Amino acid sequence: MALLDEDRLLPTDPGVRAISRALYDDIRDLPIISPHGHTDPRWFAEDAAFPDPARLFVTPDHYVFRMLVSQDIALEDLGVPREDGGPVEQDPRKIWRLFAGNYHLFRATPSRLWLDYSFQHVFGIDRALSAETADWYYDHIADCLSRPEFRPRALFDSFNIEAIATTEPATDDLKWHRMIRESDWNGNVVTAYRPDGVVDPEAAGFAQNVALMGEQTGFDTSSWAGYLDAHRARRAYFKEFGATSTDHGHLSARTEDLGPDDARALFDRALKGDCTAEEADAFRGQMLTEMARMSLDDGLVMQIHPGCERSQSDRVLARFGRDKGFDIPRRTDYVDALAPLLNAVGLEPSLTVVLFTLDESTYARELAPMAGVWPCLRLGPAWWFHDSPEGMRRYREMTTESAGFYNTVGFNDDTRAFCSIPARHDVARRVDCAYLGTLVATGRLREDEAHELAHELTYGLAKTTYKF
Amino acid sequence: MALLDEDRLLPTDPGVRAISRALYDDIRDLPIISPHGHTDPRWFAEDAAFPDPARLFVTPDHYVFRMLVSQDIALEDLGVPREDGGPVEQDPRKIWRLFAGNYHLFRATPSRLWLDYSFQHVFGIDRALSAETADWYYDHIADCLSRPEFRPRALFDSFNIEAIATTEPATDDLKWHRMIRESDWNGNVVTAYRPDGVVDPEAAGFAQNVALMGEQTGFDTSSWAGYLDAHRARRAYFKEFGATSTDHGHLSARTEDLGPDDARALFDRALKGDCTAEEADAFRGQMLTEMARMSLDDGLVMQIHPGCERSQSDRVLARFGRDKGFDIPRRTDYVDALAPLLNAVGLEPSLTVVLFTLDESTYARELAPMAGVWPCLRLGPAWWFHDSPEGMRRYREMTTESAGFYNTVGFNDDTRAFCSIPARHDVARRVDCAYLGTLVATGRLREDEAHELAHELTYGLAKTTYKF
Amino acid sequence: MALLDEDRLLPTDPGVRAISRALYDDIRDLPIISPHGHTDPRWFAEDAAFPDPARLFVTPDHYVFRMLVSQDIALEDLGVPREDGGPVEQDPRKIWRLFAGNYHLFRATPSRLWLDYSFQHVFGIDRALSAETADWYYDHIADCLSRPEFRPRALFDSFNIEAIATTEPATDDLKWHRMIRESDWNGNVVTAYRPDGVVDPEAAGFAQNVALMGEQTGFDTSSWAGYLDAHRARRAYFKEFGATSTDHGHLSARTEDLGPDDARALFDRALKGDCTAEEADAFRGQMLTEMARMSLDDGLVMQIHPGCERSQSDRVLARFGRDKGFDIPRRTDYVDALAPLLNAVGLEPSLTVVLFTLDESTYARELAPMAGVWPCLRLGPAWWFHDSPEGMRRYREMTTESAGFYNTVGFNDDTRAFCSIPARHDVARRVDCAYLGTLVATGRLREDEAHELAHELTYGLAKTTYKF
Repeated sequence: MALLDEDRLLPTDPGVRAISRALYDDIRDLPIISPHGHTDPRWFAEDAAFPDPARLFVTPDHYVFRMLVSQDIALEDLGVPREDGGPVEQDPRKIWRLFAGNYHLFRATPSRLWLDYSFQHVFGIDRALSAETADWYYDHIADCLSRPEFRPRALFDSFNIEAIATTEPATDDLKWHRMIRESDWNGNVVTAYRPDGVVDPEAAGFAQNVALMGEQTGFDTSSWAGYLDAHRARRAYFKEFGATSTDHGHLSARTEDLGPDDARALFDRALKGDCTAEEADAFRGQMLTEMARMSLDDGLVMQIHPGCERSQSDRVLARFGRDKGFDIPRRTDYVDALAPLLNAVGLEPSLTVVLFTLDESTYARELAPMAGVWPCLRLGPAWWFHDSPEGMRRYREMTTESAGFYNTVGFNDDTRAFCSIPARHDVARRVDCAYLGTLVATGRLREDEAHELAHELTYGLAKTTYKF
Repeated sequence: MALLDEDRLLPTDPGVRAISRALYDDIRDLPIISPHGHTDPRWFAEDAAFPDPARLFVTPDHYVFRMLVSQDIALEDLGVPREDGGPVEQDPRKIWRLFAGNYHLFRATPSRLWLDYSFQHVFGIDRALSAETADWYYDHIADCLSRPEFRPRALFDSFNIEAIATTEPATDDLKWHRMIRESDWNGNVVTAYRPDGVVDPEAAGFAQNVALMGEQTGFDTSSWAGYLDAHRARRAYFKEFGATSTDHGHLSARTEDLGPDDARALFDRALKGDCTAEEADAFRGQMLTEMARMSLDDGLVMQIHPGCERSQSDRVLARFGRDKGFDIPRRTDYVDALAPLLNAVGLEPSLTVVLFTLDESTYARELAPMAGVWPCLRLGPAWWFHDSPEGMRRYREMTTESAGFYNTVGFNDDTRAFCSIPARHDVARRVDCAYLGTLVATGRLREDEAHELAHELTYGLAKTTYKF
Repeated sequence: MALLDEDRLLPTDPGVRAISRALYDDIRDLPIISPHGHTDPRWFAEDAAFPDPARLFVTPDHYVFRMLVSQDIALEDLGVPREDGGPVEQDPRKIWRLFAGNYHLFRATPSRLWLDYSFQHVFGIDRALSAETADWYYDHIADCLSRPEFRPRALFDSFNIEAIATTEPATDDLKWHRMIRESDWNGNVVTAYRPDGVVDPEAAGFAQNVALMGEQTGFDTSSWAGYLDAHRARRAYFKEFGATSTDHGHLSARTEDLGPDDARALFDRALKGDCTAEEADAFRGQMLTEMARMSLDDGLVMQIHPGCERSQSDRVLARFGRDKGFDIPRRTDYVDALAPLLNAVGLEPSLTVVLFTLDESTYARELAPMAGVWPCLRLGPAWWFHDSPEGMRRYREMTTESAGFYNTVGFNDDTRAFCSIPARHDVARRVDCAYLGTLVATGRLREDEAHELAHELTYGLAKTTYKF
């Protein structure tokens, strides 16, 4: 028995399924373009074996451990490291058994689809994971991981990845990217410029980060002009390592377009650490517009990922640090928030700003209408909690009628879970083909157009938008 | 001709329908667990006959009379009592005819489904309600109601209700519950602790209610400490009458976690009646956290039902009182609102907080992500205006992918319309089986898992979550 | 090959499709009632030929040119006139080619459905529009437009329009409407009263508009009482030209019910041009309630279209003026916003207020619950960005269960694109029949009820609500 249904996620009506299946068969084997994600470049630089099944699938994946936590399983018991170095479970087999015994919690979640896909397609497994099969699974996967064909570079090649972008802070030295470039391996792994730590006055170590950026570039980052120059220099440095994009994760989508004197004064207060919360927010907003202006010059595609309340649990944050599953989306406004940036540079044909949202109520109301008229705007795919079959379906149903397909950018896997990459792209390909097939079956699209669009949504739009 | 289609609410594709039908056939006859609702315990205490068809189906059901009001029918003409005792229609047959003649207004509403189910399954009727059949219907139902098998206890038994919770104010003497317990009838009817009238400084008679709670418990409720002790005592008293839960209906989901001095000062002002609207709101928020802390000790499951603007029409409120159909949902924030409570007690494994919403935009954005990580949180079912086939479908589609099934709690009928209870549970069972069948047909769930889940969603989760 | 699939927009399951198809066949040829829209009465007054394909389909249609702009095509190149009279493309064939060469951008948008319908049904075209067929299309349509059967009145008759409302500002002289009435043509074209320019203190020329209204009516519009009298007189004048409704396009749904002294003082400040933004907003809100009061007397149906941020691009507004595709919906609150008006007049049976929204999250949460109880409220159809197959489906799925069908008002095409009118009504008819067929197939409606409802949704509700 296969773990996966060959026709999964396709429409249930046999006639529509046949149309969608034909679309899918056409594009299922296209190479993966992964223009935004969080894989660790060190994997590809060192090409070391992944340590064990638990540390591959459980301990680092916040999608996985958050669901276990929600049912009273402690992060300690899943081996998630504590900030204070205190004791947590060290036995990967025990962690794996705990995960396997609770695998039913993931029923009908995207994690289940991604995991089963990895089990079947990456590790050749054909039996379901459960308490009973936990040890068999562990041994089988551990055995695989010890073999060369399961090293990061080999997996990269077998996943048919044409290009992948990682994400590094603006002050990163990019040494792993350098090591990849200097190696004899040809995998196309590029970086992306993530300046959150140097544009957010409330980020830990903001002033030091800005000072470091000065050292790295030779500009005087204690002045507004020097600070902007340092950004330009760092962006150029990131471009040397293949970067085609920047990425911005702010609490809101607020932008500002202050005059130079106001911007400079705000920067000065931010650097001294005595700006208010409102001023810090205004500064972040100003920096989005500054980044957009720099993109006019250097061509980097700008990505905005707003709207997440990070680390809602103070205790979990203090004990385990960031990215531990307690990040919760909030209502997000785009219309007023983006107006300053758009009025500054939004009609420039050379600019591309890719918008993401965790607030699906903005799809049809704000984002599709805006992307359907502003030349610079493109809609990123369904993101994070919405990177799922139902989430992707809602995304297409709520954006296509006002924004069309050509103001979208294909799929982002946005993941640090390496083995899930082909699984996630496969889900997106199936859901898109289900949607396109439904459009054909309801007379909204001709079949030849659907085939052309399936190719665009899978490959073409990602490649052209992100300039790969 | 039957009023009801045997396959109603199941998927339309024949293949998927067959899967869903098999799931439904498996669970359709499971006993009803009704852990949250508003039936009147007096019915079961006295076991008196229901008076007439109009006073069973029309006059007390705000779902029914609101729709008639929306089309210019006066509440007076439906026999809804006036606060001033002024004249309203007294002839139940006239009221029934008015209702029957406008039955087309309910087309495609859940009320129509519930009513037709009651007509067919409770009263054995096989013809449609209309102006023409109004009198026949009236006579038939009136005749039934005069028979012993249509008394409340007999209906309770024939509905296959294993357990039902009513809801009483914190200061209720629970005399009807006492009478049920002292009777020779074995129906499992329990109460639930609803403290709105003693935690909301803006509730009518707040200070008197608090004083009454002092008399009832022997604690000095003019002091913050005594007031909290009185809550503990009343909760214990409610537990004697089977309560396993508390219920909280606030305008927002706001919680607070003030220091003891601030809380005490706020309570003092509230009791004197001179707190501002903002302070009253803060006090309600503080009391949610206090209730959660008490749940850690006594194990009562906490239910939060926020987000309804009560009695939007001043004139209807003055003339007819509360609960007259003019209650309208509002946008509700959960992320900031619940943070104080969650940071105080949200990681405690012994706590269960069941969240409800009238703002569906929070399902995928806030509630499922929060329930998918906080150990204390569970998602209540689709509520009130959303307790409907489309509402339930959206609930599953928007919560399952982030929260899974095991962070949900089964169905609540939440009703005072007794005959609708089996109808409402049947709708939920069908919609859940339709959803599960669709997951199977699209390769997201195995069929054996779907059968297990159908049982959980129908019976298991309600029983374990609500500790029946 | 036909451009259009005969079964487009109907359900994909063959059994359900058959039910829906039968419903559609029953109502497809019913006359069009178009109670709200923006066609130009001059067309019907002068009955001149439309100038050319580009100026019929591209240059005046913001749905069309916005999508082209979003992909870096300049408004100048589409012949959209500049406010300063500067040069824009004058060659209609060039504009047409630009449009045709980018027709793929409209895939799966409602514009594509409307355009293809017009091409096939109005112009008898059976080949797809593309760069290759651009010239053939141009010549064919240009040839048609030169013939008498493509003049506005002939098209009106061939579209089977029983009645259509245009929309004119309160100060319009209605001369084109007069000309229509005085002609020998019997087409039923009526006006609607749109007072935005005389109720919005922030509208361009507000004081002059109010003064003009004084001249037109003989009332002293520098006083609050005279200003209200002038409104009454203008409404009566509009009624002479067939008006059955008023229309109000405000940024929010805010209403106020101030005492006469406060209202008068606000008016005085507004007229002097020294009210604050908040006061201007309050005045607009007050005027909605005043308009509702006048409707009690003169019977005009009130339409409220709130929630759009107009002209987000300052540069496009300055260069090309309003209505250039940069209008973006915003989150809209209805519960608090409408309470003053509703509490003033909302229980009056003679009042009808039709509510529209661009914020779909309010359908199930606010609008359907409110329309499902307030006698005056009716829900307008899915509007603007949501006037689309998916938008209409969501509208029915999210409003019917709480508001029923009889608190809705049928379809509005709301368009200035004349040839799209039958296309838009056809989309609505198909989507409604798809929805009704699905209800039948899932046992939520009997087939005879569905046929009755199909007629109501297509024809009956529009005719009775809007008093045609």
